[in-house]
Amino acid sequence: MIFLDKNNKEPLYWQIYNQIKNDIINRILPEGTILTGSRTLAQSLHVSRNTVDAAYNQLATEGYIIAQKGIGYTITALPELSIPAFPQHSLSMHPIPAKHKTLNIKYDLTNGSHTNDLFPKTLWRRTTIKCLDILDQQARLSSHLDKQGEIYLRENLLAYLRRIRGVKCQPEQIIVTCGLQQSLDIICKLLYDKCPAVLMEEPGYHKAAAVFKNNNMDIKTIPIDKYGISIDGFPKQSFQYLIYTTPSHQFPTGIIMPIHRRLELLKWAKMHKSYILEDDFDSELRYYAKPIPSLQSIDENNNVIYLGTFSKGLSPSLRVGYMILPLNLLESYKKKFKNYNSTVPLLSQYIIAYLLETGEYDRHIRRLNSVFRKRLELFIKEFNIFNNKIKLIGNRSGQYFLLEFTANVQQDELIAAAQKQSVQVYSTMQFWQDKADCPPNMLFLGFSKISLKDIPDCVQRLKKAWTIFL
Amino acid sequence: MIFLDKNNKEPLYWQIYNQIKNDIINRILPEGTILTGSRTLAQSLHVSRNTVDAAYNQLATEGYIIAQKGIGYTITALPELSIPAFPQHSLSMHPIPAKHKTLNIKYDLTNGSHTNDLFPKTLWRRTTIKCLDILDQQARLSSHLDKQGEIYLRENLLAYLRRIRGVKCQPEQIIVTCGLQQSLDIICKLLYDKCPAVLMEEPGYHKAAAVFKNNNMDIKTIPIDKYGISIDGFPKQSFQYLIYTTPSHQFPTGIIMPIHRRLELLKWAKMHKSYILEDDFDSELRYYAKPIPSLQSIDENNNVIYLGTFSKGLSPSLRVGYMILPLNLLESYKKKFKNYNSTVPLLSQYIIAYLLETGEYDRHIRRLNSVFRKRLELFIKEFNIFNNKIKLIGNRSGQYFLLEFTANVQQDELIAAAQKQSVQVYSTMQFWQDKADCPPNMLFLGFSKISLKDIPDCVQRLKKAWTIFL
Repeated sequence: MIFLDKNNKEPLYWQIYNQIKNDIINRILPEGTILTGSRTLAQSLHVSRNTVDAAYNQLATEGYIIAQKGIGYTITALPELSIPAFPQHSLSMHPIPAKHKTLNIKYDLTNGSHTNDLFPKTLWRRTTIKCLDILDQQARLSSHLDKQGEIYLRENLLAYLRRIRGVKCQPEQIIVTCGLQQSLDIICKLLYDKCPAVLMEEPGYHKAAAVFKNNNMDIKTIPIDKYGISIDGFPKQSFQYLIYTTPSHQFPTGIIMPIHRRLELLKWAKMHKSYILEDDFDSELRYYAKPIPSLQSIDENNNVIYLGTFSKGLSPSLRVGYMILPLNLLESYKKKFKNYNSTVPLLSQYIIAYLLETGEYDRHIRRLNSVFRKRLELFIKEFNIFNNKIKLIGNRSGQYFLLEFTANVQQDELIAAAQKQSVQVYSTMQFWQDKADCPPNMLFLGFSKISLKDIPDCVQRLKKAWTIFL
Repeated sequence: MIFLDKNNKEPLYWQIYNQIKNDIINRILPEGTILTGSRTLAQSLHVSRNTVDAAYNQLATEGYIIAQKGIGYTITALPELSIPAFPQHSLSMHPIPAKHKTLNIKYDLTNGSHTNDLFPKTLWRRTTIKCLDILDQQARLSSHLDKQGEIYLRENLLAYLRRIRGVKCQPEQIIVTCGLQQSLDIICKLLYDKCPAVLMEEPGYHKAAAVFKNNNMDIKTIPIDKYGISIDGFPKQSFQYLIYTTPSHQFPTGIIMPIHRRLELLKWAKMHKSYILEDDFDSELRYYAKPIPSLQSIDENNNVIYLGTFSKGLSPSLRVGYMILPLNLLESYKKKFKNYNSTVPLLSQYIIAYLLETGEYDRHIRRLNSVFRKRLELFIKEFNIFNNKIKLIGNRSGQYFLLEFTANVQQDELIAAAQKQSVQVYSTMQFWQDKADCPPNMLFLGFSKISLKDIPDCVQRLKKAWTIFL
């Protein structure tokens, strides 16, 4: 018995379809039953024959009924399995809202976000409109992308990197990715067979470690000394390794690897046929000296894979990064990733390329550096109230620094006390693979998400929080 | 001897820095040499002392020289290694232009691109401006993203999928990715230990196979029959498997899996504790019937991972997809991907969410379907000139169909002949893991990149190309 509700928002054919389907599922209409002809059913329901045909057509498409010549539609056989009642077309379910943090934090000293004013909103809007027009003129608005990144972006990126980082390569060696982690994932897939182990700075970048772990790489940690990662701690067996390093601004200590250490590292990599993964994540953000030429620029033996990102120089909300493969890995990349698609929107690629080409990117970096430098200098000044009981480490560039306490303190107590004053500071524990080696008297503070005007109040709150520990 | 060229665009301090550095590298200034005091050097070069200090500062930062109290700067020790001449600041190298295809193709029957007019340019521009304002008001323009995707997008996506695909889940189960391949990569990392083998439709989607291979999964191909993938071909050993399938529109044959086969598949997956990866890539594009409810909507046992994309419904240039994990995989996902970042730009996520929320997305899909339907119908009509010597297969939805030739033909000859008429058609060989099983009398043709008005001329050209083979 089919009941049609003409006041129901659902179309009539859909009501017919749904009721017959439910009858089939509930075995009210068993296998082999011949359905009433559509003309007859239409007359009895006072609807047009088209309406019934549409319902039968949908049932046939889904395999509930089958057309048999000269007979009409019959019900097909369904295997025994509890089929749930099908969701109704008009069914409205209310999603459970996602949990949000309820901590009352006024100042979040993270390095993963920027203050809102640092996003070049007007420039981005203007360039979006411009690039939509360019792509429209090229009839490429909705086209398939080059999996390595658009050549327009790769050429402009290369000109920029050559100028400020001394990078030497051809556009063919560049792969535009949706961030460092995708770059590392590609490297793991390319080199897992040759180099199943990776040497990592301790402390080092935990988000890189996460990718190595998920690719089943064996991580060997190498303690850093005052010059960064040291080959003295490298394994003596002559295997091939990946060496993940942040030579221009060690994460999180801020150490700049000097030239003699860089050359030692290259020499070791050459001898052991290993690959140095040079993560140059924030080398544009230097306030007191020019960026140091990259390892890639002094590598003559195809041992360096250069990794970069636009998360620091433009915005973490963009999700665009890149890597430069040495020539000897290109063929293998092309083979293994032949059937892969690009992971970065065409429009994002064009906008960034346009900003690089027109010099807007350089102007933006200068503005960013001026803002960050002022914030950093104010933090250094304000921290004087602690009378050297807290030392700032790695504080000449980037968007973060470490705090080292002279007193005997525990990170979690310091963090909890700061939270009570509505300031979020971070543990350095996450950067140690071997947590036991992490000094308890350290903290990690970023200044990308705090405004200049808020810094004095923020440090006052930290003083209130920490005085009892010092 | 330092030579300064005041007409050179390079700043004076950089010229000083570069010349001293090259002298150190070339061992003209050996280890231990004490540099001339900056005041003295400044006087002799007729530059300000600040200029020399800036050069020395840069050399010290890079580790070429070291300050020694009461002595001044001395040259540090460098290990033996041929250092290349450093790239000069002003050096201009011309990149080799990338090779572009030189084939003279007028009509490209791919399914990887859309014609330019299908991109909703005006809507995209308007919504970009709108979403930049929304994010600005929320002070979130440059913020860190939720790695699973913004909750605003996940909630609106879910409401949409619930309505048109019958999907049942909570926003917590959704992960927004930069495309199918990233979704599959996450699945491989989640399930490799449990299910190291994947059952794939033969023929099937080669770009999915590429991801499984790069994650060292063992691929077992299962020949499809007229209902799609069949459990009759599944392995008898009771291992756990991943089952990659395209039930709503088998790729590339276009077969729609009927309900009885769907239930068999779910039953098998339940019995073998396996996961069905339901790739629902183009189910919105149906021209003659409503989309069929997804496998996910009738799964009661946490055996289905639902995979979707905006590449077909919006544009392949966006690089946005998503997946829905069953509840029993959430904990493992949260653990393994704790330290991962989002891979999709914040702005893209907001724009898509806004289009879904306001119904603009539905309107766009209707427009798309009307365009594709007309193209498909015209192709079917035009192909009549071949008098049934060529059959169109899988031609009720999507953006592609297969051609089956009754004559004894070879794919490569047909493709070459079409190219001579400036039409690009595609081999089906790529969709077979075992190439020997691919029928030689088939071709793959997409109609997303050809305009309606061009179809008659295109088919005429194919006739010219292929008449001798028929």
